[in-house]
Amino acid sequence: MYSLSKRLCAEALGTAILLATVVGSGIMGETLAGGNTAIALLGNTIATGAILVVLILIFGPISGAHFNPAVTLAFAIRREITLPHAGLFVVVQIIAGIAGVIIAHAMFGQDLLQTSVNVRETRGEMLGEFVATFGLVATILGCVRFRPDAVPYAVGLFITAGYWFTSSTSFANPAVTIARTFTDTFSGIQIGNAPGFIAAQLAGAAVVTLLFGWLLQDPET
Amino acid sequence: MYSLSKRLCAEALGTAILLATVVGSGIMGETLAGGNTAIALLGNTIATGAILVVLILIFGPISGAHFNPAVTLAFAIRREITLPHAGLFVVVQIIAGIAGVIIAHAMFGQDLLQTSVNVRETRGEMLGEFVATFGLVATILGCVRFRPDAVPYAVGLFITAGYWFTSSTSFANPAVTIARTFTDTFSGIQIGNAPGFIAAQLAGAAVVTLLFGWLLQDPET
Amino acid sequence: MYSLSKRLCAEALGTAILLATVVGSGIMGETLAGGNTAIALLGNTIATGAILVVLILIFGPISGAHFNPAVTLAFAIRREITLPHAGLFVVVQIIAGIAGVIIAHAMFGQDLLQTSVNVRETRGEMLGEFVATFGLVATILGCVRFRPDAVPYAVGLFITAGYWFTSSTSFANPAVTIARTFTDTFSGIQIGNAPGFIAAQLAGAAVVTLLFGWLLQDPET
Amino acid sequence: MYSLSKRLCAEALGTAILLATVVGSGIMGETLAGGNTAIALLGNTIATGAILVVLILIFGPISGAHFNPAVTLAFAIRREITLPHAGLFVVVQIIAGIAGVIIAHAMFGQDLLQTSVNVRETRGEMLGEFVATFGLVATILGCVRFRPDAVPYAVGLFITAGYWFTSSTSFANPAVTIARTFTDTFSGIQIGNAPGFIAAQLAGAAVVTLLFGWLLQDPET
Repeated sequence: MYSLSKRLCAEALGTAILLATVVGSGIMGETLAGGNTAIALLGNTIATGAILVVLILIFGPISGAHFNPAVTLAFAIRREITLPHAGLFVVVQIIAGIAGVIIAHAMFGQDLLQTSVNVRETRGEMLGEFVATFGLVATILGCVRFRPDAVPYAVGLFITAGYWFTSSTSFANPAVTIARTFTDTFSGIQIGNAPGFIAAQLAGAAVVTLLFGWLLQDPET
Repeated sequence: MYSLSKRLCAEALGTAILLATVVGSGIMGETLAGGNTAIALLGNTIATGAILVVLILIFGPISGAHFNPAVTLAFAIRREITLPHAGLFVVVQIIAGIAGVIIAHAMFGQDLLQTSVNVRETRGEMLGEFVATFGLVATILGCVRFRPDAVPYAVGLFITAGYWFTSSTSFANPAVTIARTFTDTFSGIQIGNAPGFIAAQLAGAAVVTLLFGWLLQDPET
Repeated sequence: MYSLSKRLCAEALGTAILLATVVGSGIMGETLAGGNTAIALLGNTIATGAILVVLILIFGPISGAHFNPAVTLAFAIRREITLPHAGLFVVVQIIAGIAGVIIAHAMFGQDLLQTSVNVRETRGEMLGEFVATFGLVATILGCVRFRPDAVPYAVGLFITAGYWFTSSTSFANPAVTIARTFTDTFSGIQIGNAPGFIAAQLAGAAVVTLLFGWLLQDPET
Repeated sequence: MYSLSKRLCAEALGTAILLATVVGSGIMGETLAGGNTAIALLGNTIATGAILVVLILIFGPISGAHFNPAVTLAFAIRREITLPHAGLFVVVQIIAGIAGVIIAHAMFGQDLLQTSVNVRETRGEMLGEFVATFGLVATILGCVRFRPDAVPYAVGLFITAGYWFTSSTSFANPAVTIARTFTDTFSGIQIGNAPGFIAAQLAGAAVVTLLFGWLLQDPET
């Protein structure tokens, strides 16, 4: 196993690049699409799905490529990461996520830290986050069990779908949610709506971890 | 082999998430695309193709990941599933499909059950469903024979193509067809047109299963 | 090796579905895109790239999945198919390609056989066909040599790129060129421009086959 | 190992086709998209990402498929290519890149060599090039270490993301930067902005090569 410092470095690099991509491609899409939000979301989707595959390919063997407190929670429930390490992972994910937002803003010549006014407050969107995180963690647990080599592709594809089929566009990640309160661009979320999103995400992750603990057991032969 | 309850659970989760994706991404696309149906269909396509890959990766090893009575029919013709189990699969697929539509409506804050008024009644569209299901089952049988690891990717890619090259946008699935009568959004189909679609789908599945029974036989060496 | 009748059946099914996809998705794109040709081409591209992956996955192990007289020429130059079989392959590809166009027209409720008036006559477009077929055959020969499992994906991706980077949108296939003279829709080509396209395609295939005969030789160790 | 002449031939063919794709798909996108730059960038992105996968699949086993002086620099720092060979690689990449631009112009019936007036001069864009090349080389080094078979797909996906999330659209390649000064189309860059881009690219490549030299070391067991 890699040393803790390398694992945390992998989590930091991965989460920062992920957020730079989510926020940066949102800015690019909104700037170029001339008001057609569907086209902006398309660019945002393609960039996010693609970078997830890459980041999991290169950092997965080092840290597991969580980049996401909800995923770290799932592995903590399964006792595949110790609680102290899980805590460190989450702290690093949150800080690195905010750093990624700052990098995106710097690349596009914007104020480095901003305050989102993007309202995402409906019950439907909270259900969306529950479904999105349920599905994301199901994707990871199912692939880790049956096709570990496919995890990077499956996660990229799940988020590609999630950006379009959930009403909340699948944040599915508390670190991403916190980081996105700091950008007043396409991908932002008002800070007041973050707690509801995060609660729904953690609930989705916990429920699917328990359900898949049963479902994925070795079949009785 | 997994227990029947786990196999049915996998069929239920997979079919529900599939329908939530088809209907949800249709709503998202139509809402954002500002009247440009091609862009709405693009979002719908990408989400559906992507989720199919994921769902087959994670549920394939448990239940075979049919999610589709036409596929279950093909495997029943090939005697790879017993008739009682096939019947249970189909019932679960239909119920879970409708549940998926309800989840999509709930996420987007819409009435949970609706009645589609989307007319899809031409002979060309029925031919489209025959071609789509012929092609979908050909994809599955061919890959299962030669490249079983590629089944998830191949099915996702076939439906990606099918959304664009068939006039009916490739429902290719009786459970999907029934479920989509319950949504009055982008992806809906008027209930009166469902029987024609389903008949064409079952015919396409049966014809290709017989044809590929001959074509895929081991070559005489 | 599969029997000749099965190999020809695989070539026929594959080429017909390929043309149904090229022409059908062109009609769908043009119909829905409201005059934005780039969006129509995007749908056309995604469908064609995706179906190529699928068709090569399922028919490759039976017939080699040529679907293309230029590819058959390349394998004939390399003496990997006999001339009589190559001749039969080409005849079947041409007939099946036209059948695929008819299927597309039938699905979309159009006249079954049409006469294209799409002018594609510039020297730049002929250079485009040379480059496209050079690249397509390079893709096949290089992957067959180094990564045979990747052939289906590589061919789908090459044509995805080719639809956008060549001025002729990469027909890269004499059977496809002939078939597309029979559709007066998005993907058509006026019959008078077909001979120039086909000559450029065969030249591109022949040149790259000779060049790669040298380039791909086993390295002197 | 392949002979030097074959390695240089692979670098030349790959870099030329890469530039023909970048510039050609930019022209196609801009021509068809009717002023919607996001859609033009989408076509540009899909073509570039797809061709990179193909080119690395077929030329990787021969030359390593650098196509990029920044990548050659990274391998020179790691002493995996000798300095004289690295020098030859870079010369060939630059010449072939310009040839690729000429091919794109010829296909689209434009003046063969042009002078770009596309201003790309902000600090944010230079940061974008640092981030883009850091990420590209991280992708290559990480995959070469853990999943060498995935290199072609990972590079294609990284550039797919990079076109959208970096403000500079991820040139990430000094040979590409030089070549793109010779086209006054969508993908061009004014010659005066090229040195800043190239400096940022080389810095990004060097920094990540050193960082990953530490990060990817075998874990202490």
